[in-house]
Order: sequence, then structure tokens, then C-alpha cells
Amino acid sequence: MEKFRFLTSGESHGKCLTAIIEGLPANMEIDIDFINSELKRRQCGYGRGGRMQIESDTVEILSGVRFGKTLGSPVTLVIKNRDFENWQKILSSNPKDINSDKAFTTYRPGHADYAGSIKYHQKDLRNILERSSARKTAIEVAVGAVAKLFLKNFGIGWSSKIIQIGNGKTEEEMHAEIDRAKEAGDTLGGKFEVRYTNLPVGLGSYVHWDRKIDGRIAQAIMSIPAVKSVSIGNHHAYKMTGSEYHDEIFCEDGKITRKTNNAGGIEGGMTNGEDIIVTGVMKPIPTLKKPLNSVDCITHEASEAHFERSDTCAVEACAVVAEGRLACVLANEILLKYGGDCMEDYKHLF
Amino acid sequence: MEKFRFLTSGESHGKCLTAIIEGLPANMEIDIDFINSELKRRQCGYGRGGRMQIESDTVEILSGVRFGKTLGSPVTLVIKNRDFENWQKILSSNPKDINSDKAFTTYRPGHADYAGSIKYHQKDLRNILERSSARKTAIEVAVGAVAKLFLKNFGIGWSSKIIQIGNGKTEEEMHAEIDRAKEAGDTLGGKFEVRYTNLPVGLGSYVHWDRKIDGRIAQAIMSIPAVKSVSIGNHHAYKMTGSEYHDEIFCEDGKITRKTNNAGGIEGGMTNGEDIIVTGVMKPIPTLKKPLNSVDCITHEASEAHFERSDTCAVEACAVVAEGRLACVLANEILLKYGGDCMEDYKHLF
Amino acid sequence: MEKFRFLTSGESHGKCLTAIIEGLPANMEIDIDFINSELKRRQCGYGRGGRMQIESDTVEILSGVRFGKTLGSPVTLVIKNRDFENWQKILSSNPKDINSDKAFTTYRPGHADYAGSIKYHQKDLRNILERSSARKTAIEVAVGAVAKLFLKNFGIGWSSKIIQIGNGKTEEEMHAEIDRAKEAGDTLGGKFEVRYTNLPVGLGSYVHWDRKIDGRIAQAIMSIPAVKSVSIGNHHAYKMTGSEYHDEIFCEDGKITRKTNNAGGIEGGMTNGEDIIVTGVMKPIPTLKKPLNSVDCITHEASEAHFERSDTCAVEACAVVAEGRLACVLANEILLKYGGDCMEDYKHLF
Amino acid sequence: MEKFRFLTSGESHGKCLTAIIEGLPANMEIDIDFINSELKRRQCGYGRGGRMQIESDTVEILSGVRFGKTLGSPVTLVIKNRDFENWQKILSSNPKDINSDKAFTTYRPGHADYAGSIKYHQKDLRNILERSSARKTAIEVAVGAVAKLFLKNFGIGWSSKIIQIGNGKTEEEMHAEIDRAKEAGDTLGGKFEVRYTNLPVGLGSYVHWDRKIDGRIAQAIMSIPAVKSVSIGNHHAYKMTGSEYHDEIFCEDGKITRKTNNAGGIEGGMTNGEDIIVTGVMKPIPTLKKPLNSVDCITHEASEAHFERSDTCAVEACAVVAEGRLACVLANEILLKYGGDCMEDYKHLF
Repeated sequence: MEKFRFLTSGESHGKCLTAIIEGLPANMEIDIDFINSELKRRQCGYGRGGRMQIESDTVEILSGVRFGKTLGSPVTLVIKNRDFENWQKILSSNPKDINSDKAFTTYRPGHADYAGSIKYHQKDLRNILERSSARKTAIEVAVGAVAKLFLKNFGIGWSSKIIQIGNGKTEEEMHAEIDRAKEAGDTLGGKFEVRYTNLPVGLGSYVHWDRKIDGRIAQAIMSIPAVKSVSIGNHHAYKMTGSEYHDEIFCEDGKITRKTNNAGGIEGGMTNGEDIIVTGVMKPIPTLKKPLNSVDCITHEASEAHFERSDTCAVEACAVVAEGRLACVLANEILLKYGGDCMEDYKHLF
Repeated sequence: MEKFRFLTSGESHGKCLTAIIEGLPANMEIDIDFINSELKRRQCGYGRGGRMQIESDTVEILSGVRFGKTLGSPVTLVIKNRDFENWQKILSSNPKDINSDKAFTTYRPGHADYAGSIKYHQKDLRNILERSSARKTAIEVAVGAVAKLFLKNFGIGWSSKIIQIGNGKTEEEMHAEIDRAKEAGDTLGGKFEVRYTNLPVGLGSYVHWDRKIDGRIAQAIMSIPAVKSVSIGNHHAYKMTGSEYHDEIFCEDGKITRKTNNAGGIEGGMTNGEDIIVTGVMKPIPTLKKPLNSVDCITHEASEAHFERSDTCAVEACAVVAEGRLACVLANEILLKYGGDCMEDYKHLF
Repeated sequence: MEKFRFLTSGESHGKCLTAIIEGLPANMEIDIDFINSELKRRQCGYGRGGRMQIESDTVEILSGVRFGKTLGSPVTLVIKNRDFENWQKILSSNPKDINSDKAFTTYRPGHADYAGSIKYHQKDLRNILERSSARKTAIEVAVGAVAKLFLKNFGIGWSSKIIQIGNGKTEEEMHAEIDRAKEAGDTLGGKFEVRYTNLPVGLGSYVHWDRKIDGRIAQAIMSIPAVKSVSIGNHHAYKMTGSEYHDEIFCEDGKITRKTNNAGGIEGGMTNGEDIIVTGVMKPIPTLKKPLNSVDCITHEASEAHFERSDTCAVEACAVVAEGRLACVLANEILLKYGGDCMEDYKHLF
Repeated sequence: MEKFRFLTSGESHGKCLTAIIEGLPANMEIDIDFINSELKRRQCGYGRGGRMQIESDTVEILSGVRFGKTLGSPVTLVIKNRDFENWQKILSSNPKDINSDKAFTTYRPGHADYAGSIKYHQKDLRNILERSSARKTAIEVAVGAVAKLFLKNFGIGWSSKIIQIGNGKTEEEMHAEIDRAKEAGDTLGGKFEVRYTNLPVGLGSYVHWDRKIDGRIAQAIMSIPAVKSVSIGNHHAYKMTGSEYHDEIFCEDGKITRKTNNAGGIEGGMTNGEDIIVTGVMKPIPTLKKPLNSVDCITHEASEAHFERSDTCAVEACAVVAEGRLACVLANEILLKYGGDCMEDYKHLF
């Protein structure tokens, strides 16, 4: 039931990250600078470490676009890993390179290492962590940027912000929390909000559970690495009464209006024309300078999970990823609702 | 990518609710009493109104089961609506009955009415509310019960509980909150928790975003009518540090163990062998005795949204629905991971 | 990637056959007499035996339709098996009835018996044959009839005919072939053609293999029980030259025209505006009066596959099923191309 | 319901063809030489023209494989187009290059040009033909080769052959037919057969139409560019009697055997353990030296469809593509039937 479908691939230190997007209408303008600016947004944020500065991700388009417009055929996006040269042997696809690196064998708590190594029968945890790394969200942001370019044609807008990190709720407090954690060799997560505006009424449907747009949004956000919670609308739904919570309906100048938006833009699994407001919670980054207790995957002896990475907090990046994921959900819903093979088919909607 | 797939149908006051489940292995025992006991659990709970007492839902199996065991062919479940006789004309499929009822035209805030009537071009809101009603969760509970019967073979267990209603956190406080709301003609939502135990390691996967089991769980729970939030594991993830949050790994008697389960049983989009703990938030029921402001869908004049229903709080039912939804996700993941056409194919796993 | 999706269920001698269709737009007229007339067409045809006369299938609508029009919610169709009373114990879902019948243990060549019994671990072949029976095509014809009702709104038409049975190509010859086979206790298959007319240009797409409409048609037809071949357009494609085969393009009065239709209405995996012409081949019915050599599924001793059924040839029924299957493919493609939630959304197309 | 899923992309003269395969188990050996040898097989065959000689396709693996084995993460395959340098401007994704080439405006009969240009609203038919070209089958062969590498572990084998070209049935006659067509500036199609051996019993299922393996095979083959017919087993099914056609079942030394295989290895939508035999018909190549009548897509004036390409017959390539497609279907069915995350999970099957 997807019209906007895509597959992504790539290991964290592999040659590149790749995405193929299938289902875009033809004659849609692809602004590569916009995609790159989204990649940049993902790399910024208070609390990011060294690697982010070194790499400046840019996308290359390998198919599906001619002279700046989509052809209707699958669009291929690639982000090259700039330091692949240093990893060429370690992540080589060639069997001859098998002894080019020492196996990494301590399970890192909070990561895919333990379950992944059992599932995929691996003794070198690099074979798990390379794909489970949040590095792959770079190409997902690129896919999300393409979805946003589609949504822009319909006048749909978006934004995101950080709501809380540790106990900090103002920018100053949040930065102080991050500084403190950094000094302690520790990490932090946080809460972020994503908002989409100017949506048509009736995306999604109540008629079958898997068509409800809130469910699809929840999957999209919860499947971002490190996200542990997704909420739509007012966070206090669990303790408000019906008369406090529900957004009464008025009519002004022949137009349906509301004075509140506790529902976060979704009623009955459908957009109701108000802003979509989604909140996500990211857990603290599980790679700590101050190592956690763990065990070795081969000997099962106690071992410390130290693996270099210098980020203290990545909630801003996470919010950018979430924006993109939501864009994909909305693009898909618009394609399902309105059909369309080329941008000309939507003229009556603009 | 679904092996356990199903469609459900049925209007709130229609002849019946129906589900077809496709993908069950053969030779699985179907205990119809268990399914009926699950239906009963859904109908109970402090705060439920009159209709629940009248109807006592029971399921009938129309296909896919012979002599108490599945055949491998699609299983059809039906729950008859006991008072259909009174609604026969009003919900008739026959064009001759078209004038059997007065149209219902006031949008009820918090319901699918507004967006639904625009999307489906309806002027009688009954055409929306009949399917958008939470009544349909009865058949979803039956489907979930079948999934649970499958999971039982693997030693998987489940439970759920209510965590908070209004500001009440103990049973006594919660009942008092409900009593107060009832008296005021108002409604309440709440927070519930669902837990699954004894799961195999490695259900779901980090390799592609749509295979992450946390994302699939989030969709399953968020698409339950009135649910506005889903969380996995410790609710305080957003304010804990990495060293506080992450579940360290130990080895005792050759077995991997943890002393905490903040991750709620899921790391890297996979089960890690610890209990899955999912929390959901249900908004207050939007059908109030004390009517909300609204407008008429035809005249757009102010009107009050009064529509009879006597529930004050349905969080307990919601938790039962959520248990069943999670069972469906887990059953599907087990079928994807282990394959299998009949129960005999899983013998090595028991 | 399906918008018109459905599940069917039911055993050959079970209580009923059921289908749930999800994805129909609202406000579409459902003419139940038309559906029943399609069921009747499936039951007729020269060469059908006794059972067909006894049963006269009729459909009941359990959900999704009010006052003769769809609601947008899932539509449930049921065809009751008229002689279920006689089978109640034999096909009971109740474990208590387990000894109500003798197991059927001889594999019938040409049927699902052998592979099915191994796959689903069954020793009573009735557990296979009840679902593998072509009886289930009755409900598929009902689903196809609903799809046809949708297509009618777009002015799309359809027809089918039998091309060859045995060596007979005229009606007289074909009947003679059937008479001869019947006398000999033998069976026959044949070739049929289905045609759809007045289709929009551009259903399907060349951009990805799984969006090609010819591939989807091929699956739909080949998955009809007993169909072994599907062709689109001129049967002699393999021996014609390019200059003979390809349908040249002309323009008359500003309209694109063709003088031939060897392509059968599909170029590049898309409808090209000409009639879709699909040919299918049905193998002879595998249930013969003159029994075939086989073995017992338990003892593996030689045994004769005799199982009563009195049809000699069912190609006419098969063509009706194929018409319906094609209707489902086309309805789905129209929903994907044009989107739409209710019939009003297509007004500009009529 | 797919576990082996993939997307492909790339224009005929674009930078490259790309595929992402998601769903492969970990620890499967990837023999890149085998993939390249398959690409070579596709490029050979009597009747191929000049381009085939110039390009010698080779694959590069960008992700999902380390030290010669799969990681379980998505595998990315790329085939670079060797003459892209000459096309860099013409197929540029950059809007600045828009005037680098003259539009191509004559619809080519037998191609996607006409329907595609209407569907995707294009006036330069290059925007259609670049993706609709059969060039994209190169990457599909690479994907199929990966599927074959998976199947090899189960002892499954394959082969294909050409059965008829024009009226020629021996190799000599077929070459003579091709020579004649080439001289005349004409083209030819033909009939080919693909065979898979040593399959497990019970891939696919009769329980729901979309799980029947014959239907899935039919889609896979019919969606190959230029294929117009797919058959399974004996071609004469339409004129044989039941007693002639059906493959009787015997038991020799405790093993089920057959003396015939008219069913082509499939009964009841499942593999029955006999060889799968699939026949396909390819229409003649629609790009002729001797131009066909057509019209201009802008002026609608008569025009001749001349577009250079020098192949006379490509049935051998088509058979290689079909082999690969079938491999994908079978790999998916094995993954559905047996589950499995890594090759170690299949040990009991070898």
C-alpha cells in the first residue's frame, strides 16, 4: 500500500550510502542544494563530536532526474563516505582482505550488537555495528528532503525544535546539560517536536487499522535509531478530561476552525486540517567515553564497551531525521489520495 | 513483508464484525473459549457504560479450522451484533431502505466525523461513525487472541495493566477519578502498559528501517482508536544520562543477563531477550454527555455534539486491544524469522 | 502497492465462502443482482456436472454498503454453501467431531494433494482438497463483479469467449469434444480469451518491473486453479517479424489510431488505449471418473485416485473467473493512477 | 509478503544501473565472478548488434558484503555504463544542461513511447525510452545472479534454451531465420524455456490466490520487456484429455515418483518436486532498421520511427533474464518457507 517506496543501503564506514526512491511523479523539480542543506542540518547541533566536522555530506543523483526534473523513473541518491580510503581494506567486499582488521568483540549495551550478533551469527561485531549505526540516517534525510520537495508543491510546510534535554528546557539550560554530560564522558538524549502545516483534510483513514496516518507516523518516528517514544498532540492527554481535551469545532466566515489543537492535527486516523504535531523522545547515545559493563561475545568474559565516538547529544540531528521521515509518510499519503503520474496531474490542487 | 496478514470489516451497528486471517500455520490448536474470554476482557473495566453489559461478544469460526486445529487456509472469525435486529433498516445494504433514518449531521469533536465526511463525501455522519467507532476493536481482539494462541506454543507470555487515569495512580484513586468524571458527564483517558515475556532474541532487524520491531509495535499501538502516544521502556529516557539509562550486560552461568531493562526489551530494532514493555496513552473518550461546541455539517451552523454513549473511561479495554495488537506483530515476526507451514515445523524451537 | 486489496476464505464444503474487500471508494453503487448474475455465469457452461445444478450461488453483503452504496469501509461478501447441513460434522471446527469421517488418503494427480499434504503435514487429504478446490473461485467471481461495477463508471467494458476445447474450435466441435470426453469418463481443458475495452492510456508503468500491468495480469490469470498459460495479444508473436507484428501508429482527426492490435492493448507494461486481449489455457480437470494411478499417502501403496465429481469441462467458468481477476487488476490500477476516496473524485474523468 | 525484495534504477545511457537487494541472509558467499559471467551471458547470443560488443558489463558491490560474504544488510549492486562520457550532457541531472540535445519526438510502435509520454506528460520521448529500454535488464540479471547464488546452497539447479525463432526449431534453422531478418532490416522474437531442478516440495501455496507460485512466476516472466506469453509445463494442455495430461503418481523404493511432468513441476500452486519448466514468448524487437509508420508526438504528423539499434534478435538474452527472474521468485519462496537470518539457519536442509 505504498506509492512512495524506497530502499536504502550502506555501512557506516563503507564506500557510500545509497537510496533508490520509486514512485515519484514526473516533472517534479529536484533542488539538489536543498537536499544538501538538509544533510548539513543533520550534521549540526550542539553536542556533536569530531566526525561531523570532518565529513560534509553531499548527495549525488545517479538516476531518475534529467535537467533538474524527475522522469518518473526511480531516483538514485548516493552519499559518498569521505574517509572510505582509510577503511577500504577493513570493509572490503573482497574475500582476500579478510585478515585486514582485528575483530571487535565486546557487546555495547544499548546497541544492536548483542541481538544482532546472535541473529546474524557474527563473531566480529563490526559486522553488526556498521549497518546498525545511525550513520545511515544521512541517506534517510536525503530521501526525506526529496519528499519535502514534493510536499512543497502543495504548500505544505514543516519545522522542528528541541523541547527538553536532561532537565533543561531553555536553550541555555540544554547547552549547560550537554556541557556537563560531555565533561563527565557521558551522553544525553532528549525530546523533540516536529510540525507540519497546511495539510489537506483526509490523509489517512479510519476504515482499516493499517491505513491510519497516526500509526504510520508512529512507525516512521519510532524506527529512527534511539527513538523510544512518539506522541501526537498534547502530552497530557492521559490526565485531561474529555471536555478539556477535545478541540471544539467552529465556523468562521464559512470556514471550519478550531481554537485548540490538542489532537495534534489528527482525528480518526486522518489529518483534520490543523497542524500535525509529533513529539519524539531520543534515548541517550549509547556510545560512552566512560565505558559501560559488558561481556565479550566469544569468551563471555567481562569486558568494557569502549568504542570511539565523540558525540554527547544528537537530538537536533534526530529531529531533522524525524522531519524527513514524516515527509515520506505524508508524500505517500498524498500519492495514495490524489494518485498522479506527473506534477501536471495536481494542478487543480495548487 | 507480512506473513500474518488480516483484514477486518464491519460497522458498529451492522450485522456483524468479520476478520479473515491469512498466514497461520496448519495444525495449530484454536481454543475458542480463550478467544471468547479475551472478548469478555475487552468488555469489562471500571468506567464502561450500558452497551457493554447488553452485548456479550462471542466469536464464530467460519473457515480455516477443522476439529479444533488450523488447516493452513484462511481463518474467518465473526462476531454478530446482538441488537442488529433494531438496526436492520437503518444500516441496510438495500437501496429501498434509504429513508429509514434521519441523517446525523453534527460533527463530534475528537472523532473522525469532520475529516471523514469530507474525505468520503458524506452528509449523513452515520456513514462515518459506524466504521470509525471503536466497536471494531472487538474483532481485532479476536484476531489478537488467535495470534496469542500461536505465541503460546513458544512459551511467550503477556500481561497488561493500567498505570494512570487522570491524576490517579492507585486503583482506588483511578476509580475515584472515573466516578468524578462520570458524575460531571465527562470522560477520561489514561496510561496503560503491555508486557510480553520470554521472547526469542532477534525478532525484527536494524538492517532496514521498516524491519525494526519497535517501529512496527508503534504503528500497531498508535493505530488503536484514541491512542495518542507509544513508548518503549523507561519513560524517563529523555532526561537520563547514557550511564544511567543503558542496560549493562553481564554473564552468569554462561547466560547473558541484565540487571535493568530501561530499553524495554528492544535494542537496535530487535528483541534482546528481556521483556518487551510498551506504554500507551489513550485520550479521553470524545463522546460526552456534556456536549462540546460544534457545527452542523450541512448548514455550518453552531450545534451541539450529543450522541449517546455511556462509557466514561475505556482504558482497560484499550489495554486488551493493545495486547492483541502486539501479539499480531510478534506472531508476524516469528513467522518471518522461522518460516514454517505447520506447527510440526517449530518442534526444534519448543 | 495495492489499493484494491482483498482476502478470501472458505472450504469447498464449509459453511460459506467469505471475502473482505478493502480500498473501494465511497458512494459507489453496488448492484447485488449483477453480482449474482456473475455467480450464475460461473455455474453454467457446457460440460458442467451435477453439483452446479443443485447450488445456485447468491451473495450476501455483510458490511461496507448502506442503502446500495459503498461507505468506503471494507465490504464483506458471503456465499453460503447450500448443502452445508450434510457436511456440518465432517467439516466441523469443533474438536469433538474429530471422528465424524474417514480420512481420504489417495493423492489425486494434478491436484494440490501431494505437495499440500507434505507442506501442511496432513494425513487426511480432505484437509488439503477442501481449500485447494476450485469452489473458492465463486467468491473470487463475486469480488471481480464488485471490481467490474467500479470499472463500469469509467465506461470500461468486458467480454470473454472460448477459443478451443480439445481440437474443436467451433461451438459444435467443442460440444462434440466434451460429449466424447464425458462418455469416456475423461475430462478436457481449453483456451479462452478475455477482452477489456475503452481503457484509459497509461495504466501500469515501465519504470519498475513490478508495476508493469502485463506482469500483474499474468499473475492474476495464472493463479486461477488449472490455468497453465497466459498470453497477451497475438499468439504468433514468436514467429512474426517486427514489421509484421508491431502496431503502426496513425493519426486520424487528431486522434491516435491503430489498424492492428497484435500487442493486445499493452506496450511497455502500460495500457495503450487499445483493447486488452488476454488468452489463458486451462488444463483438463484432474478429477476423472476413469481413475488415474496413484499411491496412498500413508502406506505409499498403489491406489486409485477416485473422487466424485461430475464436471467434464469447466473452461467457460474459468473464463468468467479470469474476467473477474482482470477486473481486480484494472480497478487497482485505476485507484493507483487516479487516487480518489469517493466516486465524486472521478467526476472529471467520466 | 516479500522477504527477498529489491529496487532497481538507471537509465539506458545514464551514469549507471543500480540495485538494492534487501532480505538476504547473512554469511552467504557472494561470488562476483559468477555475477559477471551471468552479465556476459546476457550480452551474447546470435542476433545481437554492435552495442553489446562495446560494453562488457561488470558489477561493483557497494554495500552489504564484507570479505566475500553477506552481512544481512542491504546489498547494493552497480553496473556502470561505459560510454556515459558521451552522454553526460544529454542525460545530465543538472538544469543547466537542458539544451544539450534535440528532443526525440516520433512514437516508436511496440515501445512505451506513446502511453509513457501521455502518462508522464513528456514531449521529448527520450524521457520515456531511457528507462523503458531493455538495458535495465542488465541489473536485473545481476540481482537474479545473487538469487541463484542463494539457491545453489540448496542444491537447486537451472538451465534455459531457445525453442523456436521464426519458424526455425533447430539451431541452424534459427540462425538462418535471424540472418534473413537481419538482411531485411527486420527483427524476430521467439520462444524460450527455463528449467529449475531439485526443488523442495511445497514452495508456494493454494490457500490464497496471491501465494500461488505459478502466479508469481507468471508475473516475473511476463514483466520482462517484450515477453507476451508464459506457460508452465506441456504446451498442449488445452487439447489433451485429463487421462493423457495428468502426471500419475508412483512409489519406488519408498520415494514418490512420476513418469511424466506435464504439469511442469507445479500442482495446486506449489512445487511438487519435479522440475519447474516455464516457457516464455518474446515478441520481435520493436526497433527496426526498416522504419514503421508512426506520428510525431507534438505535431501529430506522420513520421517514421527510426531509432538506431542494431539487434535483430535477443531471445537468448531474454532467456537469461527469465532465469534470473525465476531465481528471485524461488529465493523469496524459500525465505518465506524456511525463514532464516543467516546461512547457518539452513544447515538442517542441506
